[in-house]
Amino acid sequence: MCRFAVSYRIFAGSLAEAEDRAAGMALEQTVEIPRDVVPHGYIEDEILGRVEAVAAETKGTFLARISYSPDSVGDDLPQLLNVIFGNSSIQKGLKVVGLELGETLAERFPGARFGIAGVRQRAHRPTGGLICPVIKPQGSDADTLAAIAYACALAGADLIKDDHGLANQSMAPFRERCEKLSAAVARANRETGGHCLYMPNISGHAEEAAEFARFARDAGAGGALIMPGLFGFDLTRQLAAADWFGLPLMTHPTFLGSHVLSETLGFTHAMMFGVLQRLSGADISIFPNVGGRFGFSADDCRSIAEACRAPGGIGQPIFPSPGGGMSVERAGDMRAMFGDDVVYLLGGSLLRHLDCVDETLRQMRSRLA
Amino acid sequence: MCRFAVSYRIFAGSLAEAEDRAAGMALEQTVEIPRDVVPHGYIEDEILGRVEAVAAETKGTFLARISYSPDSVGDDLPQLLNVIFGNSSIQKGLKVVGLELGETLAERFPGARFGIAGVRQRAHRPTGGLICPVIKPQGSDADTLAAIAYACALAGADLIKDDHGLANQSMAPFRERCEKLSAAVARANRETGGHCLYMPNISGHAEEAAEFARFARDAGAGGALIMPGLFGFDLTRQLAAADWFGLPLMTHPTFLGSHVLSETLGFTHAMMFGVLQRLSGADISIFPNVGGRFGFSADDCRSIAEACRAPGGIGQPIFPSPGGGMSVERAGDMRAMFGDDVVYLLGGSLLRHLDCVDETLRQMRSRLA
Repeated sequence: MCRFAVSYRIFAGSLAEAEDRAAGMALEQTVEIPRDVVPHGYIEDEILGRVEAVAAETKGTFLARISYSPDSVGDDLPQLLNVIFGNSSIQKGLKVVGLELGETLAERFPGARFGIAGVRQRAHRPTGGLICPVIKPQGSDADTLAAIAYACALAGADLIKDDHGLANQSMAPFRERCEKLSAAVARANRETGGHCLYMPNISGHAEEAAEFARFARDAGAGGALIMPGLFGFDLTRQLAAADWFGLPLMTHPTFLGSHVLSETLGFTHAMMFGVLQRLSGADISIFPNVGGRFGFSADDCRSIAEACRAPGGIGQPIFPSPGGGMSVERAGDMRAMFGDDVVYLLGGSLLRHLDCVDETLRQMRSRLA
Repeated sequence: MCRFAVSYRIFAGSLAEAEDRAAGMALEQTVEIPRDVVPHGYIEDEILGRVEAVAAETKGTFLARISYSPDSVGDDLPQLLNVIFGNSSIQKGLKVVGLELGETLAERFPGARFGIAGVRQRAHRPTGGLICPVIKPQGSDADTLAAIAYACALAGADLIKDDHGLANQSMAPFRERCEKLSAAVARANRETGGHCLYMPNISGHAEEAAEFARFARDAGAGGALIMPGLFGFDLTRQLAAADWFGLPLMTHPTFLGSHVLSETLGFTHAMMFGVLQRLSGADISIFPNVGGRFGFSADDCRSIAEACRAPGGIGQPIFPSPGGGMSVERAGDMRAMFGDDVVYLLGGSLLRHLDCVDETLRQMRSRLA
């Protein structure tokens, strides 16, 4: 059995302090009892976290690598996250910067079902950036939203996603919206010969999530949008693993910001929006783009894109999907920054030009091709 | 229909800047499109967030109160959280400090099923602090854990909880552990005439959570431990609302630390471990105690206890449950700090004194009574 390892950045005054903290985390994340009462044998030798290395990184920061037993995890993603950063998330000056899954857990957590190659195949877009308009606003009825989706699909969108604020509200309840938008996109596909994929937002109560996903599949949706910050990362894993679902998954960053925005807490951007998304089985990972309304830097965004696509990462490479601030004018710059293996979200600005959405998408395509 | 309101602390250089940001959040959390394309009528008048007030708080901080329509939410807790702090969670310098649910949402989100009064009734402990040993460590087999639980129940524990690191690992799989510990606690109760409640950790895959809860109920468990940071807050709501379950719920802070530990991000301690737990239906809210291994101050802890127990809060008042650092020696101080309506967790230190657990609990009881 091959142990897995997590790397943490520890903010500490000295190497000795960092070593103490690492030893504390090795206890905290596993047995959660004082060192002197850890039972000898299997628990001490195998279950107890093992500090593999602690080294200075910069002035005031240290990198600690702690290995854990796959036995601590079993087969469950929530418990894997619990070992990676459960109670330690409540300690200050500690950030998760790396995860080496190892062979044993790599078999238990295979990652994305489709990845970049599989989504490209389904969308019949073998090269170039994919364009994904976002359907909104909340408060519209399902027919209005379906008309927008139809126009976007007709104009050549590769994917179409619900705004993450479209849940199961009475104005456009999930089932009605899902049926009408799936039908609208299918009609556009028949007319154009295209293969646009509609991804409804799995919402409602937690216990309805699988039922909604099945409904989406039966209604002809081309995938689904998941909000792991609200429904837990394991919903992505569940749907990625489910043969009865078998469609691409896109994940949204809502409610996850606090995990990355502090320098000294949570996860790095690459870990949260790259590694953890691959681990849970997302095919497309949405994150807020630099220069929009959010606090991500260009380097943060590049690190996410790299983590999503790195060949040596968990499972297959997946699509990074920067959201916010996309327009025809910025398409060239964004392509220069992110490249081709990207799903480009096209949000609120689209509503300004609904009457000429086909011209907008045509121009955008030419700049992304 | 009564709107609900969220109060945010905004870190900004001027009132004008804070007002701009508040206006941006009112869009971001609802329609998520530029202000000039918000459709007139229902969406602009009702759905669009409404900035009710922005006022200076301290130098560099401002308080903004934004009201939202219950229509934005529907009946679903994940979507309520999405409106309270979805995309805004990805913005810097923004903290949720208050929630006024209003009459309409108060009917949709009734809060705890048991609360302080109901848990006291089930535990037959009408006054004084409740004592809750934590069963560990991970890696032990179910018989070993059951023996510890039996000793604790025999010694007069009010509640017994699984360590949150006991998931569905092969050493003590959920079902086997749940059956053996439930039986052990039931046997102790028969022998003492006591009413100790065993609360197993609902773990495994997300799609197994309801099934595990039902199994726990059938096995004779006295409640359940939930990890909202890993499984989503809606699991608490689901089980609190489920007549087929009908047992008290305890929530654990694992994976939630990043939401509170930064001064300028996420939620206040009182919001996360008080208000959101009451909102989702927890009866007992665990948080890391001051002076232990975690970064919470005495004021942070007091604010949580107050939010859990405030008479005017969501649903019934619930038990705050400080974890970490409890011992016979500290019992008097903790009682002075937190008072009587508290579930005191007793963790790793217990394993040092397993041979005299009844004496430990007897001394602790006398200091908490």
